[in-house]
Amino acid sequence: MSLPRYRDPAAPVPERVRDLLGRMTLREKVGQLNQRMYGWDAYTRAGGGPRLTDAFRAEVAAFDGMGALYGLQRADAWSGVGFADGLDARDGARTAEAVQRYLVEHTRLGIPALLVEEMPHGHQALDGTVLPVNLAAGATWDPGLYADAVAGAAAELRARGAHLALVSALDLVRDPRWGRSEECFGEDPYLAARMTEALVEGAGRAGVAVVLKHFAGQGASVGGRNSAATELGLRELHEVHLAAARAGVAAGAAGVMAAYNEFEGLPCVANRYLLTDLLRGEWGFEGVVMADGTAVDRLVRMTGDPVAAGALALDAGCDLSLWDVGFTRLDEASERGLVSEEALDAAVARVLTLKFRLGLFETPVPPPVPAAGRLPDPAELGERLAAASVTLLSHEGGVLPLSRTPGAARRIAVLGPNADSLERQIGDYTAPQRPGTGITVLDGIRAAAPPGTEVVHARGCALVGDDLSGLPAALAAAASCDVAVLVLGGSSARSGDTAFEANGAAVTGTGTPTGMTCGEGVDLADLALPAGQRALWEAVSASGTPVVVVLVQGRPHALPEVPAASASAVLSAWYPGPRGGRAVADVLFGIAEPRGRLPVSVPRSAAQLPVFYNGKDHRYRGYVDQSALPRHAFGHGLSYTSVEYGPPRLSAATVDAAAPRLTCRVTVRNTGSRPAHETVQLYVRRLTGGTSWPRVRELRGFARLDLAPGTEAEAVFTVGHETLASVDRALRLTVEPGEIALETGPASDRTREARLRITAAAG
Amino acid sequence: MSLPRYRDPAAPVPERVRDLLGRMTLREKVGQLNQRMYGWDAYTRAGGGPRLTDAFRAEVAAFDGMGALYGLQRADAWSGVGFADGLDARDGARTAEAVQRYLVEHTRLGIPALLVEEMPHGHQALDGTVLPVNLAAGATWDPGLYADAVAGAAAELRARGAHLALVSALDLVRDPRWGRSEECFGEDPYLAARMTEALVEGAGRAGVAVVLKHFAGQGASVGGRNSAATELGLRELHEVHLAAARAGVAAGAAGVMAAYNEFEGLPCVANRYLLTDLLRGEWGFEGVVMADGTAVDRLVRMTGDPVAAGALALDAGCDLSLWDVGFTRLDEASERGLVSEEALDAAVARVLTLKFRLGLFETPVPPPVPAAGRLPDPAELGERLAAASVTLLSHEGGVLPLSRTPGAARRIAVLGPNADSLERQIGDYTAPQRPGTGITVLDGIRAAAPPGTEVVHARGCALVGDDLSGLPAALAAAASCDVAVLVLGGSSARSGDTAFEANGAAVTGTGTPTGMTCGEGVDLADLALPAGQRALWEAVSASGTPVVVVLVQGRPHALPEVPAASASAVLSAWYPGPRGGRAVADVLFGIAEPRGRLPVSVPRSAAQLPVFYNGKDHRYRGYVDQSALPRHAFGHGLSYTSVEYGPPRLSAATVDAAAPRLTCRVTVRNTGSRPAHETVQLYVRRLTGGTSWPRVRELRGFARLDLAPGTEAEAVFTVGHETLASVDRALRLTVEPGEIALETGPASDRTREARLRITAAAG
Repeated sequence: MSLPRYRDPAAPVPERVRDLLGRMTLREKVGQLNQRMYGWDAYTRAGGGPRLTDAFRAEVAAFDGMGALYGLQRADAWSGVGFADGLDARDGARTAEAVQRYLVEHTRLGIPALLVEEMPHGHQALDGTVLPVNLAAGATWDPGLYADAVAGAAAELRARGAHLALVSALDLVRDPRWGRSEECFGEDPYLAARMTEALVEGAGRAGVAVVLKHFAGQGASVGGRNSAATELGLRELHEVHLAAARAGVAAGAAGVMAAYNEFEGLPCVANRYLLTDLLRGEWGFEGVVMADGTAVDRLVRMTGDPVAAGALALDAGCDLSLWDVGFTRLDEASERGLVSEEALDAAVARVLTLKFRLGLFETPVPPPVPAAGRLPDPAELGERLAAASVTLLSHEGGVLPLSRTPGAARRIAVLGPNADSLERQIGDYTAPQRPGTGITVLDGIRAAAPPGTEVVHARGCALVGDDLSGLPAALAAAASCDVAVLVLGGSSARSGDTAFEANGAAVTGTGTPTGMTCGEGVDLADLALPAGQRALWEAVSASGTPVVVVLVQGRPHALPEVPAASASAVLSAWYPGPRGGRAVADVLFGIAEPRGRLPVSVPRSAAQLPVFYNGKDHRYRGYVDQSALPRHAFGHGLSYTSVEYGPPRLSAATVDAAAPRLTCRVTVRNTGSRPAHETVQLYVRRLTGGTSWPRVRELRGFARLDLAPGTEAEAVFTVGHETLASVDRALRLTVEPGEIALETGPASDRTREARLRITAAAG
Repeated sequence: MSLPRYRDPAAPVPERVRDLLGRMTLREKVGQLNQRMYGWDAYTRAGGGPRLTDAFRAEVAAFDGMGALYGLQRADAWSGVGFADGLDARDGARTAEAVQRYLVEHTRLGIPALLVEEMPHGHQALDGTVLPVNLAAGATWDPGLYADAVAGAAAELRARGAHLALVSALDLVRDPRWGRSEECFGEDPYLAARMTEALVEGAGRAGVAVVLKHFAGQGASVGGRNSAATELGLRELHEVHLAAARAGVAAGAAGVMAAYNEFEGLPCVANRYLLTDLLRGEWGFEGVVMADGTAVDRLVRMTGDPVAAGALALDAGCDLSLWDVGFTRLDEASERGLVSEEALDAAVARVLTLKFRLGLFETPVPPPVPAAGRLPDPAELGERLAAASVTLLSHEGGVLPLSRTPGAARRIAVLGPNADSLERQIGDYTAPQRPGTGITVLDGIRAAAPPGTEVVHARGCALVGDDLSGLPAALAAAASCDVAVLVLGGSSARSGDTAFEANGAAVTGTGTPTGMTCGEGVDLADLALPAGQRALWEAVSASGTPVVVVLVQGRPHALPEVPAASASAVLSAWYPGPRGGRAVADVLFGIAEPRGRLPVSVPRSAAQLPVFYNGKDHRYRGYVDQSALPRHAFGHGLSYTSVEYGPPRLSAATVDAAAPRLTCRVTVRNTGSRPAHETVQLYVRRLTGGTSWPRVRELRGFARLDLAPGTEAEAVFTVGHETLASVDRALRLTVEPGEIALETGPASDRTREARLRITAAAG
């Protein structure tokens, strides 16, 4: 008896898929599109080591197979999985193997499942290394470092038997009220595209395939409201929201997740234009489209019926759903004539193709060590990423870096609600951390302070609210010290008290969840720091002690004019991850230089939104009561040294639209006495021409320059089609004739320009 | 010698146009599309009565004709025209006649000009009657009354020789930060459509043709920023922003004004989809498209050249430009091959057609008395409109109506910065008022108070800022009185200090214009009342004296929780016009009942925007720190009596999508002791079906019921295609199958429902 063709590893994948598909019943096909089960319901540890549950066996039996199993190893407050009952690294690998063995041995065709895990910033599992959130990664402007860290985290995930990592990458912070701002690389399409490429490439090094979240336009939700409507048109979608997805697809992403939000009146999971015409038709994407959790069943609001909802999503282009009932009833949809056999087969074929490509039939559980060799320690890389993300927003009076001279008797007050909380510095989508691990900012400062330093701590105020009862103790501490470090900001820490939606988003709006101001489902209207934190900042500033504010936050809070003080500095450390306290301390003491650059504009208030830097150029003069400009501009970030940027120098003043090619050079000089790690930024600003009203400016390149004191170096940008292209009337990226300015500088609001004429394509 | 065909009044208009066009030179054609001159530069009163200027003669000579003359009679701070040098009613009529006589006698073809005037809420000319702003008209929900008032104002305009009235009607308040919110009928498409029909019809009674401003989507400008970008897509445009324009076109509007804002990357003046494909192609509009002021020249930002800018606008569908250089150089554009002769001729033909239709060749200056007979006094109608617009937002402790019992010694404190200012109650786009005219709120209260009442007045605080120095005097006044009426709000009053853009918008963002918080160019980020006003409100509330707050405002300011007081009431009087003080007093004393209903949602803060009631239905739970619901809902408005609404009763439970027809009845009972003037509202809420995600609810009808105490009556709505239609995938208004709820009630947040099934069209 010869092996079935689909089991022949030497056969081409399309043939294997065709062969297998030909053997499948309708029910088996539907089963391959099924990802209904919560992974943590597939095992139990009751009475000893993890065992598969009856619920898992029943789910397999219902379809004689299982397309994908979500979150087998997920642990967090929503899943309710913790150290007492969850899977650590070793048990995770074993349980993944048991799942696959069961599928191979107990189903007719023996098709293994895709094991799908959340890896928003590290694998969301017990003992999974937590990296800084994506907004922090965006602040590094360092795709290479980010790719290394992702590779390390992905290797952990792969070592536990999983194949597919779900990662937020495609959303942009267009309205920082959105609680998921922390999951974005920032507000800019170009920066997000470069980070998304790095993500796909880094995960690929470890043999992990990535599903990019979320496609498309979710950052444009009205009012920053989670998974709500957008009013987006085609042009705004193409000009702003698609770049990261296009880059991720080109980099080889295995999947994209269809988002909750609407586009042109249809939720993305039901949007054939997005999922089929654009993604597959125009971009040639051959991977899978996964619906966001329960997004298919939400379509019942339109269809009135879950079967029709599943049909609508399948027809639009979804291949796998998540937790939905509707998609598990596609056989009924087929029998009712709501979906064609061709559409169903196409979706199944895409799922099977991915399984073949990932080698599931040969090795259902991947070997723990990736073929490329051992990868570096993700915790170490996460800490480097955190240090590189610390962004110095303002700096008066030379308060930083703090002295490292030993012996000089010094006292440092470390104050504020985020000074000593591991949970509040790791962000959303994180598993419980082992007690005793992690380094808070207070820990980091204690460890980094030179011998003889006394570090005193007081919380000062709670994270939220206007209770000022802790102020006197904090003020007393500040008064007795040489410098006060105030650690303020937000928190995405879930707790046992948090209530959740069916998809794991926090339930808000019926009362503040304990201590949460950010994260999925936790949108914030007023972006100012809470009243207690503002009062603490003002009071300490007024005390005369130099003040350093460190913002541990998942979004840019609106910042007031910095209260007057003899010396002061403000830094954003984002959510820097479990070892972030050391990263922050390294920057404070000058062990590392501050080199983060804002991936998002910092507003003055929620009332002036939006503040993104790349809006349309209508030369708006501002509101009558306040500026329309942000407190700090996109790309901004100071260092401890001083630098001078020369003007951009172009190798040509005129180029042909058909084949533009030139170089743009800019010389940067470190005029100070400390090392400089500059992120030289290249923007394009259209002066005339083009078929769409121009934006103020658009990032189209960045380069890192490391400069010793007193030295200079040159950043060289190759300017070509990608740099100069804009979205034409047919929504294609085209180089359109006219005049543009190429601008370079250290931030979007401090650029110098050179002009370039683009002539109409010859011929 | 026979009369040229175009001069034959008996010839059909198309023939007259063809004949005339055939006689014209290119330059003459360009002249017919020209509306470059400011009308106030066409005359001078230096040295006596008004005479035409050399500038006017030169402009005519340049093209041997003039398409249109804008604002001959405009008077305001921007034009610099006042009583000393402007045109009153008599001189206006004479000067209009002189203009036309000059054109007829001194040009080869003798074509009169269209005389175009601003009539945003009354003719913006000296002695033109000022009506309440459109937002107030919207609050009346009374298109009939509004049409009467418009007819009266239009008759004044016509009596002064003008033909075309420019009126804001199409914009919606989707973001109340926008300074032009006052020019909108509200946030709702249906209400705006009914008021727009009334406007066109009312003006038509007086023989005045209307140009509807602005087409299209200007209310969706990002951040409420004047004339900026929109991110609007086609669907949001069609579902929300087009209804008023479609209704106005169907009602016979002579023109629409192409807006400044972008749609899909192109300013409306350059947007062929909007002006040609949609407006003319799909809707069959045969009138003229006028570009907003300087909007064509702004296109130089794209084209790099004013000639190409003019060509782009003409090609998109603009017929007349306003103040632009680009459009006056269309002959160059023609010679450079940028516009076709057909496109140019089509635009000229549309302008000439309008001139023939308006009878300009027969009677260049219309007779002062309209054929339909004398129209009612617009000032009287404006006052009725103002009274009907006063909206009682909250009412605790029965503080209203104020006692009218004579002889009872009573003291009333009238406080606040808007208590005694005529300028601040008339809104933007108004001419200087004759000294000694008008009735402020203070005047109105003094006049309406019963004999024996003592009315004391203190300003308390300035309109803007946080100066509290006036508080003690106001508090002393309040403490000595039985009730305090606080008149707070905003102001659109221009002054001699105001700086202006080239199009008459106020220049802001470089410092607050003196005392302005609203109006064109005066966008406000923080919608709360200024700090001084808030302090006054809180202090007076705490004094123990019952408090009545009257908001004189051009937008819904964000309202706090009403400060605790023994008794209190809050009313919005919008900008009620010059006699508005009497209208307000009539309501306060119960001479008139409060019957206004909110045409726009009242926010709690700018941080929670948007708050419009008809967003997409994503069951948003709210921000973690505040509700996403408004302080007061669209349609809300209390009365001095109590009413009970029965449930809606449908004449059918199921209808066929092809020919839906039923009635919806609701019984309303006045259960109180004063007259009720109810605006019964009908909303549609889709439960299932439809090809676009449903909105929370959508207004589709309203009816007025006047009920004596103790009586009841029935509102009867005919429900048909218009009521049930939604925008289908092809962007057509179609009745789509599924289930909907028909909801009736006194406000959008207090409705009862009956369900209706719509079956697929038979056959």
